[in-house]
Amino acid sequence: MLVGVKDEPVRQRLLGEATRLFAERGFEGTSVQEIVLAAGVTKGAMYHYFDSKDDLLHEIYGRVLRMQMERLTSIADGPGTVAERLHAAAADVVETSTANLDDTKIFFRSMHLLAPETQKNVRADRRRYHERFRDLVAEGQREGVFSDRVPAEIVVDFFFGSVHHLGTWYHADGPLTGAQVGKHFADLLLTSLRSGEIG
Amino acid sequence: MLVGVKDEPVRQRLLGEATRLFAERGFEGTSVQEIVLAAGVTKGAMYHYFDSKDDLLHEIYGRVLRMQMERLTSIADGPGTVAERLHAAAADVVETSTANLDDTKIFFRSMHLLAPETQKNVRADRRRYHERFRDLVAEGQREGVFSDRVPAEIVVDFFFGSVHHLGTWYHADGPLTGAQVGKHFADLLLTSLRSGEIG
Repeated sequence: MLVGVKDEPVRQRLLGEATRLFAERGFEGTSVQEIVLAAGVTKGAMYHYFDSKDDLLHEIYGRVLRMQMERLTSIADGPGTVAERLHAAAADVVETSTANLDDTKIFFRSMHLLAPETQKNVRADRRRYHERFRDLVAEGQREGVFSDRVPAEIVVDFFFGSVHHLGTWYHADGPLTGAQVGKHFADLLLTSLRSGEIG
Repeated sequence: MLVGVKDEPVRQRLLGEATRLFAERGFEGTSVQEIVLAAGVTKGAMYHYFDSKDDLLHEIYGRVLRMQMERLTSIADGPGTVAERLHAAAADVVETSTANLDDTKIFFRSMHLLAPETQKNVRADRRRYHERFRDLVAEGQREGVFSDRVPAEIVVDFFFGSVHHLGTWYHADGPLTGAQVGKHFADLLLTSLRSGEIG
């Protein structure tokens, strides 16, 4: 179903209240009734936008992942050397992850409660994201700009481990902004791909 | 309580059966009665070694973390340049993590169900591990062997994100051994700390 701009407020409100309630009471401890009450809409209105409570949880993470995929595509297909594009893509995914840390944490905490089919779709969407990122690493390796000592696939697993781990230590009110952590992580990634002797 | 070598079989058997049952039925879905039955010991024997079911879960991860701390200390305080010691320590923690992946996964899945005090102790033990690792990075930065562009603390968060993430993609029957992944990760870490221009 295509959602027009004028529909966004209700949809956003439902997602916002669902996120807040899932964070406070857990996914299992929250009913659809509580979500519609908090958002000030009818159940009918909710089912216009979402098939189920599962669908709401899925969408909390789905909208983050879609936004990140759009940004990655735009950076990867944009101007600049492969090193510049990989640096920008790496810094960007760290920054957008820190800006949406609660959504991601809430999703991953309850992902195993979703229907197997939904879990499979999420994994497929994420795989597409990782593949686009891997292609960028592989492009630089083919051009000889990056070392191919470590396979591009492993480089991606290495880097996204660090990204997914942000939720365990990053705090918005800590000493570093998301952009600063993004620059540090992107610097480490780019440097790790240099050619020559190790050490 | 000090456990002598002759006591190890019963203790190991209890930990082994608890790990298997927690993996199969979840921590909440497993009773102490089921664990002692599977291990073929009395409840009294179990309480000789463990205070509670919480204590069993804690120890499943605790023994991995203690072993890793011993190995890190021995490598960090051992012979070799700081680059050699950091490479060995990084490769080693990846290899021992892949070798004990189930224990770690079972623990982290249910860690939030442990008493707050126990969770605090685990975090403190892990912090000590990370601090020893960070000191090794800082040592190389002080000596000018490693770049200090990125703070040692962030380097450690970056690297251990990748290590903690192993459980989501590494499989013992996959194409790479734990030692091979360890070498790749250690190569990426060491190269990421090189001085000079980025890219």
